[in-house]
Amino acid sequence: MTLDDVYISLGKAQTRLALETRLARDRALKGAAEALDGGREKILAANGRDVEKARAGGMKESLIDRLFLNGKRIDDMIAGIETVIRLEDPLGRIKAGWTLPNGLLVEQVTVPLGVAAIIYESRPNVTVDAASLAYKAGCSILLRGSSSALESNRALTGLFRAGLEAGGGIRNAAALADSGSRDEVDEILRARGRIDVVLPRGGRELIRRVVENAKVPVIETGEGNCHIYVEGGFDPDRAVEIIANAKLQKPGACNAAETLLVRRDALAALMPKLAARLAGKAELRCDGPSRRAIGIPPAGLTVNDAAPEDWETEFLDYILAVKTVDSADEAIDHINTYGTRHSEAILTHDMKAAEEFRRRVDAACVYVNASTRFTDGGEFGFGAELGISTQKFHARGPMGLEALTTIKYLISGQGQIREPG
Amino acid sequence: MTLDDVYISLGKAQTRLALETRLARDRALKGAAEALDGGREKILAANGRDVEKARAGGMKESLIDRLFLNGKRIDDMIAGIETVIRLEDPLGRIKAGWTLPNGLLVEQVTVPLGVAAIIYESRPNVTVDAASLAYKAGCSILLRGSSSALESNRALTGLFRAGLEAGGGIRNAAALADSGSRDEVDEILRARGRIDVVLPRGGRELIRRVVENAKVPVIETGEGNCHIYVEGGFDPDRAVEIIANAKLQKPGACNAAETLLVRRDALAALMPKLAARLAGKAELRCDGPSRRAIGIPPAGLTVNDAAPEDWETEFLDYILAVKTVDSADEAIDHINTYGTRHSEAILTHDMKAAEEFRRRVDAACVYVNASTRFTDGGEFGFGAELGISTQKFHARGPMGLEALTTIKYLISGQGQIREPG
Repeated sequence: MTLDDVYISLGKAQTRLALETRLARDRALKGAAEALDGGREKILAANGRDVEKARAGGMKESLIDRLFLNGKRIDDMIAGIETVIRLEDPLGRIKAGWTLPNGLLVEQVTVPLGVAAIIYESRPNVTVDAASLAYKAGCSILLRGSSSALESNRALTGLFRAGLEAGGGIRNAAALADSGSRDEVDEILRARGRIDVVLPRGGRELIRRVVENAKVPVIETGEGNCHIYVEGGFDPDRAVEIIANAKLQKPGACNAAETLLVRRDALAALMPKLAARLAGKAELRCDGPSRRAIGIPPAGLTVNDAAPEDWETEFLDYILAVKTVDSADEAIDHINTYGTRHSEAILTHDMKAAEEFRRRVDAACVYVNASTRFTDGGEFGFGAELGISTQKFHARGPMGLEALTTIKYLISGQGQIREPG
Repeated sequence: MTLDDVYISLGKAQTRLALETRLARDRALKGAAEALDGGREKILAANGRDVEKARAGGMKESLIDRLFLNGKRIDDMIAGIETVIRLEDPLGRIKAGWTLPNGLLVEQVTVPLGVAAIIYESRPNVTVDAASLAYKAGCSILLRGSSSALESNRALTGLFRAGLEAGGGIRNAAALADSGSRDEVDEILRARGRIDVVLPRGGRELIRRVVENAKVPVIETGEGNCHIYVEGGFDPDRAVEIIANAKLQKPGACNAAETLLVRRDALAALMPKLAARLAGKAELRCDGPSRRAIGIPPAGLTVNDAAPEDWETEFLDYILAVKTVDSADEAIDHINTYGTRHSEAILTHDMKAAEEFRRRVDAACVYVNASTRFTDGGEFGFGAELGISTQKFHARGPMGLEALTTIKYLISGQGQIREPG
């Protein structure tokens, strides 16, 4: 099948899927979960071939770990489908409704966005996560994983599709783009009119490439140069725990903090405690005043001078840049200059500073007195996550199923015509 | 100023505008309305130069009429600003809010989308409409009108900006792209990161060009190949009035009907009455059964045989294509094949057919027993309209101010950190 044939098949499947009840969609997903459970050996065998090939090709062990599947990881994929089944139906919700002066009833109802495509890197679990979320939202989906995971994705998609059908659903609602060529990605990005949204999921380079080349709507995700700004008066012990949480818990996450902004009046109480807490755990890249406030670094702490490029770097590592500011204003300006509009936090007891921060910081998620690590569909209570949008168009912040919907107006009349005028 | 300088100026203005209260934004708009009122002579003189140049260049009178301004048309622009002032504030609305198990309060609040750009054809009133809507929504706006209206737009934008300032507002929130070169449009379409949305407003060619070349988010508007489908049993006199309304009231509007689909059992009662009603007013392009149902055409009615291309044509004229179908299913398939997902209507008393039509027709607005002409921001009660989106991404159907907003999550805590797991 050419990609054009795949688009047509996905479009037809989506037209049918849009009419399926929640019950029917959930039963099909249940079938998919059972098919994965019954196909464990097939999945592991296919994954074994991918891993072997990757190792022979000299792939780093950290990347091979992302590719690798075992029984536990298959359990997690199946549990993921079960979670999606339990999620509330995003379709058929009446978001607004009103009656016009002439008696026409106008209802704004949620409907599926249409045909989605996801372009992602090695983790094979994304295949199953994305396919089940899309199915729940009444969207068909084109899956374009990395060529290194091709065998695994073929096995997973094959089982998923067969399982949908066994559960009374529509197998063609999910399809794998499996030529493995790079041209394929460009072709998908140009499929205007065939694909209603492309979700790139992966590293910075992938997302940039997709955003720059796409002729179809894209939801940009992922890049997070997040800040925590601390004012004097906020309990330094509590501040240290929040900063440690935001930096150390999962440094590779996009909601991890990268730069700490400290108001001058907080330096003396905060910096020595922070230095003690991060010793042996993270490197600090400090400006002059914050470095001086540490004094003699505790054993095991690496402190370096911050360079200008540190302010604009998403380290995704155990590194924290520290900058001294003289006011909330200065902190806000720094954030709006260097931030990626992802997640930003202020730690303060000053209501005016908190309010200014909330109003003026331009980001998807603005926190007062909490860790930035909460920016996450699961934490927000969305149940499952399609990613975190860093754009402002269509979807912003953690995306649940709603990002895969649009609206339709239903207008009910009794023969109304428009009056002249 | 180069366009880059303009973008920077618009960005700075937007950052300030986003913080203005509703009262401040409305006062600035009041200032703009007063400035236009006080600048009538200047506007008319500038417009006179545009019209003179257009006429010398051989522009058609119908196009010159679109360009032409007089006292009444200036009154209308001023009244338009007054309407925008009265509209509800689209900003600072809490769309959703909830508390997480750990006590974090999450609020989803509306904020401005950012910097908008509008690319439009000759009507100078669009300059004022778009600038006032954007200002109300906290967005700055780059105005790119046609070169034929350059003098008019310069005068209008100059007065509008001065008026904003006189009203205590931010004059740089609106700027005219006035080099008049075609390259300028392409440059705007590539300004990713500088411009948050481009709204093309004009004919099909303009919209296609924008959609195909844009690297910035676009909201596609305008094309409407709309249908009315009539079933037997629906009062033929009422059906005729609805069809006449949808076809004749404003044939150049995107919500006008272009093709009538008639179920075979409705032909005999409907077609002679429709023929009588449209005689001297519109041309019919009929398939065989619908033509035969008319019998001998009444005096003044032009009836021609429908050609296959008629099904896909947005006539924007006093022409109605008529096709006979055997079922609601066939009508729905025809609509989903040839329609532009704009506005579609069924006239029936059969609940099952109405329900199928509502569910299966893929369009922004789906009507039961009413004219398609109601697809309009004013009619829907939005007060003012940015256009009618025919895309599914970000905004669909008539767009009010909400299309120029996005959301921001505000998260309020008491020192929460994310638990491991």
